[in-house]
Amino acid sequence: MALKVSDIGEKELINYILSKSKDIIPDDTAITKFGDTNLISTCDMLIESKHFPKEMSYFQMGFKAVTVNVSDLAAMGANPLGFLLSIALPKDLEVDYFKEIINGVVNACDYYEIPLIGGDTNEASEIIISGTALGLCENPLMKNTAKHGDLICLTGDIGIAALGFNLNGDNIYTKKSLKPLARLKEGIIIKNAGATSATDITDGLASELYEMKPDSLGFMIYEDKLEISDEFKEISYGLDLNYLDLILHVGEDFELLFTIDKENDLDIDFRVIGEVNGSDRIQITLSNGEVTEIENRGYNHYVS
Amino acid sequence: MALKVSDIGEKELINYILSKSKDIIPDDTAITKFGDTNLISTCDMLIESKHFPKEMSYFQMGFKAVTVNVSDLAAMGANPLGFLLSIALPKDLEVDYFKEIINGVVNACDYYEIPLIGGDTNEASEIIISGTALGLCENPLMKNTAKHGDLICLTGDIGIAALGFNLNGDNIYTKKSLKPLARLKEGIIIKNAGATSATDITDGLASELYEMKPDSLGFMIYEDKLEISDEFKEISYGLDLNYLDLILHVGEDFELLFTIDKENDLDIDFRVIGEVNGSDRIQITLSNGEVTEIENRGYNHYVS
Repeated sequence: MALKVSDIGEKELINYILSKSKDIIPDDTAITKFGDTNLISTCDMLIESKHFPKEMSYFQMGFKAVTVNVSDLAAMGANPLGFLLSIALPKDLEVDYFKEIINGVVNACDYYEIPLIGGDTNEASEIIISGTALGLCENPLMKNTAKHGDLICLTGDIGIAALGFNLNGDNIYTKKSLKPLARLKEGIIIKNAGATSATDITDGLASELYEMKPDSLGFMIYEDKLEISDEFKEISYGLDLNYLDLILHVGEDFELLFTIDKENDLDIDFRVIGEVNGSDRIQITLSNGEVTEIENRGYNHYVS
Repeated sequence: MALKVSDIGEKELINYILSKSKDIIPDDTAITKFGDTNLISTCDMLIESKHFPKEMSYFQMGFKAVTVNVSDLAAMGANPLGFLLSIALPKDLEVDYFKEIINGVVNACDYYEIPLIGGDTNEASEIIISGTALGLCENPLMKNTAKHGDLICLTGDIGIAALGFNLNGDNIYTKKSLKPLARLKEGIIIKNAGATSATDITDGLASELYEMKPDSLGFMIYEDKLEISDEFKEISYGLDLNYLDLILHVGEDFELLFTIDKENDLDIDFRVIGEVNGSDRIQITLSNGEVTEIENRGYNHYVS
């Protein structure tokens, strides 16, 4: 039997692309030297059947297509320059729904203060929204440049969207799963405060920690520092879901995960969740004191 | 009955997007002022069931995804800066086919000397390749800035791909329908020679002429100057196809259509096919001497 893409998973596919180009810097975005600064560019595609929960409105689809791309700019600490939209629609989609999608895109561009500079449409069997976000950044915040002794930090709560995907109605969880927000301004502040590395949480905390880990260094995370609310644990329990699994292995939070020197004066709302050590392992200290390895498992297209 | 996107067609959808953004310049690409120059960016999506003929190889799909985007840079006279790839694949696609697509992308990037700077993969029910081409250009060649008295020119034969879509086997027609090439170098030469306007032929000569027409000016094209070969006419006739229809209303040529002052020393292989006049109409003088209006009809997604 010939090997299928589902047999090898997304990371191996990306690795094949990387092996073919000496010009790709494996980080959250592409970085292209340009005069005194760098052009930051990223291109992410959202597909109706894969990325849009049933409850998501057309407006929210458009908004999210901007958020996922802007979030990559945020992870580099880049200033937004422009957003390009390429959208494919089923031919029998109502024009009003198309307009709602575009209104979501435009509203998100306004929110993030990134000009919508281009748009193209196409026909497909389902809604596909491909966005390209462009930004500028003199010293982009790289992904795996953390230093021994650094603090590991988060810009906000994680797992909220993960729980929201399992809930209905209007609550803080579904708000985040249906209309997540990118931490664009926070990314710039974090970079200016001297953060040593950063990425955005799309595939889950565990997966992103593995992406960030520099060779020979290790990460220790503390469950208590994640400040998981009792409500979060109770709702998860009621749904027969493991609350730590939601936090570590689902993603879609679009919070920034970053490392920074202990001596810093970072002026945003953030929390320290662990530290960089020399263990060469990625571990969590549970609330009961037990130390365990964090599994390298996150959201992976192709593996169902 | 609610209005469907197929009821209004692609141009109206694009017009809705344009109406929502003051930052979109309606041309072949987005243009963003950047220091002393302009960042040229474009994002085009190819979808297996819509854009890839059955005979097209996976390698050719990857190659074409670069060509369609680079062709937009060519139409501006831009120098290539970088290419971003976002690809979605069915999970049961063989890994070897995925590799062939990537090899096609990489080969095209080498051919056009545009670095592949980013890549992302996704899952979908069919193959979708979304590309973003970035370029730089001090004085981009706009689409509808032709002057009265200018010559209307083409970089090569058109209709070749259109006929190729109706043929099998290996011949000059299927070569062009399966592996079209963008006129990137020609675009730069044309711009430097002082062309007054340009676009690339994707939706057909007729449709592009209407896109290019400045208010109150008109275009006269001459059938004889299109230099349609007897072979082309004979094959079309044999297939019960109107040869002029193939040339005017199909597209996918990726040749450059441009206008230039009569006094010029343009040093590339090109042909003059007509001139800009004050008629406010778009017309063709047929070989039999008859003058007729060219219909504004071209390839349109959503209208089947």
